[in-house]
Amino acid sequence: MAAQPQRTSARNVLFIMCDQLRWDYLSCYGHPVLHTPHIDSLARRGVRFDRAYVQSAVCVPSRMSFYTGRYVASHGTTWNYVPLSVAQVTLGDHLRRAGRRATLAGKTHVIPDRHGLMRLGIDPDSDPGRLLLGGGFEQLDRYDGHAPPGPESGYADYLRSHGYTGDDPWNDHVVGALDEQGEPVSGWYSRHAHLPARVREEHSETAYMTDRAIDFVRQQGDAPWVLHLSYIKPHWPLMAPAPYHAMYRDSDTGPIVVADPRTENAHPVLEAYRRAHEDCVSHQDERFVRHVRPTYMGLVKQVDDHLGRLFAELQRLGRLDDTLIVFTSDHGDHLGDHGLGEKELFYEQAVRVPLIVVDPSAAADATRGTVERRLVEAVDVLPTILDALGLDPARHLVEGESLLPLLRGEPPAGWRDCAFSELDYAFRGARTHLDRHPGECQAWMARTERWKYIHHDGLRPQLFDLQEDPQELVDRGDDPQLAGVRREMRDRLADWQLRLKRRTGVDHDYIASHTEYQRKANVLIGVW
Amino acid sequence: MAAQPQRTSARNVLFIMCDQLRWDYLSCYGHPVLHTPHIDSLARRGVRFDRAYVQSAVCVPSRMSFYTGRYVASHGTTWNYVPLSVAQVTLGDHLRRAGRRATLAGKTHVIPDRHGLMRLGIDPDSDPGRLLLGGGFEQLDRYDGHAPPGPESGYADYLRSHGYTGDDPWNDHVVGALDEQGEPVSGWYSRHAHLPARVREEHSETAYMTDRAIDFVRQQGDAPWVLHLSYIKPHWPLMAPAPYHAMYRDSDTGPIVVADPRTENAHPVLEAYRRAHEDCVSHQDERFVRHVRPTYMGLVKQVDDHLGRLFAELQRLGRLDDTLIVFTSDHGDHLGDHGLGEKELFYEQAVRVPLIVVDPSAAADATRGTVERRLVEAVDVLPTILDALGLDPARHLVEGESLLPLLRGEPPAGWRDCAFSELDYAFRGARTHLDRHPGECQAWMARTERWKYIHHDGLRPQLFDLQEDPQELVDRGDDPQLAGVRREMRDRLADWQLRLKRRTGVDHDYIASHTEYQRKANVLIGVW
Repeated sequence: MAAQPQRTSARNVLFIMCDQLRWDYLSCYGHPVLHTPHIDSLARRGVRFDRAYVQSAVCVPSRMSFYTGRYVASHGTTWNYVPLSVAQVTLGDHLRRAGRRATLAGKTHVIPDRHGLMRLGIDPDSDPGRLLLGGGFEQLDRYDGHAPPGPESGYADYLRSHGYTGDDPWNDHVVGALDEQGEPVSGWYSRHAHLPARVREEHSETAYMTDRAIDFVRQQGDAPWVLHLSYIKPHWPLMAPAPYHAMYRDSDTGPIVVADPRTENAHPVLEAYRRAHEDCVSHQDERFVRHVRPTYMGLVKQVDDHLGRLFAELQRLGRLDDTLIVFTSDHGDHLGDHGLGEKELFYEQAVRVPLIVVDPSAAADATRGTVERRLVEAVDVLPTILDALGLDPARHLVEGESLLPLLRGEPPAGWRDCAFSELDYAFRGARTHLDRHPGECQAWMARTERWKYIHHDGLRPQLFDLQEDPQELVDRGDDPQLAGVRREMRDRLADWQLRLKRRTGVDHDYIASHTEYQRKANVLIGVW
Repeated sequence: MAAQPQRTSARNVLFIMCDQLRWDYLSCYGHPVLHTPHIDSLARRGVRFDRAYVQSAVCVPSRMSFYTGRYVASHGTTWNYVPLSVAQVTLGDHLRRAGRRATLAGKTHVIPDRHGLMRLGIDPDSDPGRLLLGGGFEQLDRYDGHAPPGPESGYADYLRSHGYTGDDPWNDHVVGALDEQGEPVSGWYSRHAHLPARVREEHSETAYMTDRAIDFVRQQGDAPWVLHLSYIKPHWPLMAPAPYHAMYRDSDTGPIVVADPRTENAHPVLEAYRRAHEDCVSHQDERFVRHVRPTYMGLVKQVDDHLGRLFAELQRLGRLDDTLIVFTSDHGDHLGDHGLGEKELFYEQAVRVPLIVVDPSAAADATRGTVERRLVEAVDVLPTILDALGLDPARHLVEGESLLPLLRGEPPAGWRDCAFSELDYAFRGARTHLDRHPGECQAWMARTERWKYIHHDGLRPQLFDLQEDPQELVDRGDDPQLAGVRREMRDRLADWQLRLKRRTGVDHDYIASHTEYQRKANVLIGVW
């Protein structure tokens, strides 16, 4: 007789996130050139989720879905400039209720709800204030990247202490290079992507944050911990330290996915992105793409190498045996595919991410090294962590599902057959290009095994047949033959919306104990 | 040439709410027996809205929609035991941002979010804490009714000072009576509804709260004010002071609307209400209904008489000339119609309310005494108040529409042609009767000129043809001939859901000024 699976054997959690890492830029996900043995080792020891979707292909809304376990429509942070409401309950809050802490090393991109704090009279410098402004994490070292590190990070002092002086060592050295004439140039300009950053590799952002994680894990000793190690790479500025700047060549960068404009049936929002956004225009030039992709690959390779360092240290400390490890990204990067740069919209390059989970429990032994093709979502990560630690799943708030049953070979009946993602382009030039009001810029994706349907507020929908057209080259959003498919997908979207969890103020136990409570409270209604 | 309408002539706002007042129990709404001349006088001086719908036929969710201008799906307070999240921005908050105050006399039924305050480290006894717990109102006298008045009200002391002694003067006198044998009996038992309350009429709840309003208005002098006068009647306990207890007779109580069970096609949720809820079972007995309706009518009559006192005082003070007056109710009462007591569900008796608005501006002169048949909703009251006072409409938060254009004869093109309301029966016996999970008990109404469609989570929809069947006696929710109508109504519901305002953390001006802001912030993306 097999023993009952032990569901709470993980003592620690290592939740690793990369920024803007495409699902297919890892060797375990099939990249033909980019070899990532350390991330691949996670896939060997755990389960690699082949169809993992983020709730938004934009940093902040996607991350807030990871940190709350709730869809964007529920947490309300629809884009990068929208604060996380102080009312949202995060991973840190859930852990704190159980006497545990969520520690951060790296990026969260939580936009502080300072207006909310002011309205509520909460001192931003108080303990609750700091936690709220940080999205519930205790910030070992917070560094959101793509700007000089602020006071929440030790990186600026670190750089100075290692001899990187000047007013702005980050711009000068970390994303700065010397050109062929020895003149200082900035990595903000993509034409310099082939140059090595002036920072030494061991002092780069990825190295520094890995050091913080290693220090933290060592210091914890045998005390349990939950660490969110959140790299800011391979996000731009695309400038890698030596030797990663020169590890890949133009010829390694593979095909660029471009639809035939005669058959593509490009949607107005897609066209607006292509025309109104500088990053898209630049990525429509193949030379630009071939120039930046090698650096992107180098930055991924660098992350993998540093994860190798971290995993070796975890092994030395015995922590691989009692730590749940989650590896993922907040969204992908078009890297020139579909005539787009950056992310947003709903192409696989943007909304699909790598997701690998290693469950140390013996109950998960049977699935190690397997690939799970069921649809999973970013909102599943928080309930997976709570489940692994044996904590209250907070079903009245959390909209994702624990992945542990999948990891333990006990997939529940009726696992989701549709994944959802959202877009709000109000802050983008596409809005003004299309002359739309800030309240009319939302779009929603519903993706099933075969179909990807995108509903646009006030504009026609998009539809891709992922079976016949896996590269999403033909938009069948107004194909009369597929009206029935669009009908069914729209209903799926409507059902999902109706069932979002808005009654967040009471939990299900409270409801059960207070059903028809008025009679117990001596309130007699309609009693003769 | 007509002068441009002056849109900000109201200096003060009197927002009057009754509790559980059916739309058709006023003479200006056509009641044949119940004469309410003072409320009718508002209809003569303003506009009577004939099709006003609340966002929920339950006290707390309905009121929170009035106080936030947001649908229940947006504010999340789906039933009477669910707190109003501290994150919700209320009428009081909107006024306070403009240096004004919202003063309360009476009931709000705001369920304090004490858990939220604790999580945020806010002292409930601080000024912000008290405001948050009170839903943003400054509480002149808060009294939610149907329980002995608490410390937020002066009513308990008032009763004692007027000689109503004992441990519980409210239960003993206000909703207590002496029966035919001179024995004290409780108004909680409907069989005593014909008895006069022991309290003298001038010391009753309705009289007391009217006195508070009159005192307040006098004390304000010429300073502008916003007063929410919120009566707890004609809500149960159904016990009226003399002479109102005996003003109407069984024969005045009109027909009882009962469907033919052979043709009704009763929905499972309706059946569950009828079977599992004591108040519904009791109201299925005609004798019960005939016994309680006269007292309900007496309590309405009493409110009308006291409003006459208040209006006379406003006139004496000159305040009728510069005060926007809103009169409405939080929901109706089935009073035995459809085999139901109380409220909830979506029959006109429950979701349709009286709504009269008097705009003192000369711009509204042309509509005085008219009846407006366009669909309006509870969420429209807050934007109407903000509009009348010339304040920021907060369009990123507020989901209702100002009624001022309708009052001023300038109806905007494309006024809504569908009203929405919501139900969450998780706390009701209907849930356990139907063996449903607390997360599966929501229902949503979409009501157009002709149709009332009700979508139930996990159960078949309901559909009523209000043109052919204005009494809602035949549920056509599974009539194959009307599949197309249900299809269209479901899509209306889906469109409404998708467009709810969830991005509440930034306003539209902020979005406009921060569109493509990254370039201004020296973040270069995809620049060669």
